[in-house]
Amino acid sequence: MFTFEITATSGRARAGLVTTDHGAFETPAFMPVGTGGAVKALTAHQLHDLGVQIILSNTYHLALRPGRELLSRVGGLHGLSGWAKPILTDSGGYQVLSLATRRRIHDHGVTFASHLDGSPLEFTPESVLEIQRAIAADIVMPLDVCPSFSDSETEIERATHLTHRWAEAARAEWERKPRADAGHAQTLFGIVQGGYTEAGRQASARFIAGLDFPGWAIGGLVTAEPRKDTWRLLDAVTEVLPTSGPRYLMGVGTPADLVRAASLGVDMFDCVLPTRNARNGTVFTRSGPMHIRNAQFADDLSPIDPECECPTCRSHSRAYIRHLLAMAEITGLVLATQHSVYFYLDLMARLRRSIREGTLSTWAGEFLRRYEESPAATLERKEVTA
Amino acid sequence: MFTFEITATSGRARAGLVTTDHGAFETPAFMPVGTGGAVKALTAHQLHDLGVQIILSNTYHLALRPGRELLSRVGGLHGLSGWAKPILTDSGGYQVLSLATRRRIHDHGVTFASHLDGSPLEFTPESVLEIQRAIAADIVMPLDVCPSFSDSETEIERATHLTHRWAEAARAEWERKPRADAGHAQTLFGIVQGGYTEAGRQASARFIAGLDFPGWAIGGLVTAEPRKDTWRLLDAVTEVLPTSGPRYLMGVGTPADLVRAASLGVDMFDCVLPTRNARNGTVFTRSGPMHIRNAQFADDLSPIDPECECPTCRSHSRAYIRHLLAMAEITGLVLATQHSVYFYLDLMARLRRSIREGTLSTWAGEFLRRYEESPAATLERKEVTA
Repeated sequence: MFTFEITATSGRARAGLVTTDHGAFETPAFMPVGTGGAVKALTAHQLHDLGVQIILSNTYHLALRPGRELLSRVGGLHGLSGWAKPILTDSGGYQVLSLATRRRIHDHGVTFASHLDGSPLEFTPESVLEIQRAIAADIVMPLDVCPSFSDSETEIERATHLTHRWAEAARAEWERKPRADAGHAQTLFGIVQGGYTEAGRQASARFIAGLDFPGWAIGGLVTAEPRKDTWRLLDAVTEVLPTSGPRYLMGVGTPADLVRAASLGVDMFDCVLPTRNARNGTVFTRSGPMHIRNAQFADDLSPIDPECECPTCRSHSRAYIRHLLAMAEITGLVLATQHSVYFYLDLMARLRRSIREGTLSTWAGEFLRRYEESPAATLERKEVTA
Repeated sequence: MFTFEITATSGRARAGLVTTDHGAFETPAFMPVGTGGAVKALTAHQLHDLGVQIILSNTYHLALRPGRELLSRVGGLHGLSGWAKPILTDSGGYQVLSLATRRRIHDHGVTFASHLDGSPLEFTPESVLEIQRAIAADIVMPLDVCPSFSDSETEIERATHLTHRWAEAARAEWERKPRADAGHAQTLFGIVQGGYTEAGRQASARFIAGLDFPGWAIGGLVTAEPRKDTWRLLDAVTEVLPTSGPRYLMGVGTPADLVRAASLGVDMFDCVLPTRNARNGTVFTRSGPMHIRNAQFADDLSPIDPECECPTCRSHSRAYIRHLLAMAEITGLVLATQHSVYFYLDLMARLRRSIREGTLSTWAGEFLRRYEESPAATLERKEVTA
């Protein structure tokens, strides 16, 4: 089963509830990334305690290890990992971009040379659904081609064309077998690409909307394009997409990005920022990102964010996290990650509340002002948009 | 405050309760090792959930980072880490052995060249207590010289002689100031050395017992000496030590070692085996150590130890832990560590119960038979005693 219910709106923003065979999650939703079958440094028990309702995992990585055959045999990623709530898997489309030197795109799919041992891996619109049936995610993605901002117009046209053809092929393959190997229902989203013009984006959104998917993903945004263009392009896409299904902005983003995108009608997000940055010593606070390894925190006994109620902030100080990260202690990675994942989830909860209470624009304005006036946040914006 | 109450005995074994200013812990007790101020891979919250009642930390490592001055300023390791229960610190004496190439022993102490940057670090009987006052552990250790099994008789005699002289100096320095910088009471144990003969061991135990410490540590055992000699030597020591205070066998050991030593009247243990081995892929079970990365566990959906009730075994399979360790996922280190620490704590609980119920020798015999008949345990014994 798959349902999406909108419970409140505020402008174009929506608060809602998605229900799957593994339970429901509230939207706008943030999905922590569990590339290898675990959200790095956290256990399923900790994810549960932090209030995580859905995680994302990566088809490309799981196809390599532990592999399709084993996953199918053990009941998919739910069976393997003990995580009993919803899972969404990407399609490998992002690796078409991130592993650009290790793949060749042809009309019927993508050939990767494994980043582990160079062995070939054939991804077609059909085969990525087959792998995702073995992984047994609740929400699955079709293979797409995510162009780079620096690509020529011809390259972007080809990427969009292939994305559309593969969406049709995936739609047919999903209709043929809309269930995971583990037995439960799987829901396939369409992916909108279309490059970096409003016209291109709207054309892609209209095409994908015409294929009658239960939800829509938006790819290729918040990458290297100037951030002011991002919101114009996203606005153009959400203007065209039907309101009936959830919209998922893939791989996005900073806390400020999430607030802006949700205000434009996006319902789902995933991003490695809270987890990866935490491991590198940057944690999120209401006053912007904090470089917790800075010497100024060496004897600072206050929590990372004094307003935060996560298990890390309730029991541990900046001084301790800094000390542990300086000692390369695994526990430091756990505590920092735990905080930042909670920060993202709490941000989503506050977003949903402001939508329900009709205070979104005031709340978002205040959040963005405070978050973005910090020096670290300014630095982050420059890094992201450079 | 420091009290030790024996609540039950069985032969020479005792079940008891140690009370400190940071609360009580039951004996026989296992102290997980938090070298750098955290038990590697676990949070204080997880330690609490696993039932950990006391942790051990290392004076040498904390003296280097974050350093005495900072620790004193933030309320010691309790203040820095958020761990509110008892802490025991070693004295740096073990590093006299493990960092043998980086130190010089002289009559008044030990000079280390820091393993981080080579800078000199002077440890004297007085200075290690000063550092431990800054760390603010509840139970502290005097500086000792831990000889190696391969040392000559002359070297062992000198190590014992220095250990005894430094014990007197430490005893006087502790009496001068028996409180941590953070204000609470600190308790100093004496350390028994004496080499690898029963006569040497008993002479050292008698000398240290004569100095009127509230508890006694036993160093230098379960190192490179043949394991059959270990129990004979330990038996000689516990025969001589007063029964009025807790006996702590430093740095020991395997589950089987703990059962044997507790049967001979040891009350406290610390060891890196459950944490370090877990990170290397060996976890403990009632049927002996298990090399969880072995291919045979790739699709094994049973828990590490079917009789274990730890959070890892309640929710996760061998196949998942194996997959995560193969992917070098931090979460795998957390889950494996969590299991093995729980295994050790549960073993202590079963030991205490069997002492209280008067069934120690039956229970210990059954435990050892089952634990040691596994092929992996045989391998472990060979490795340890090689």
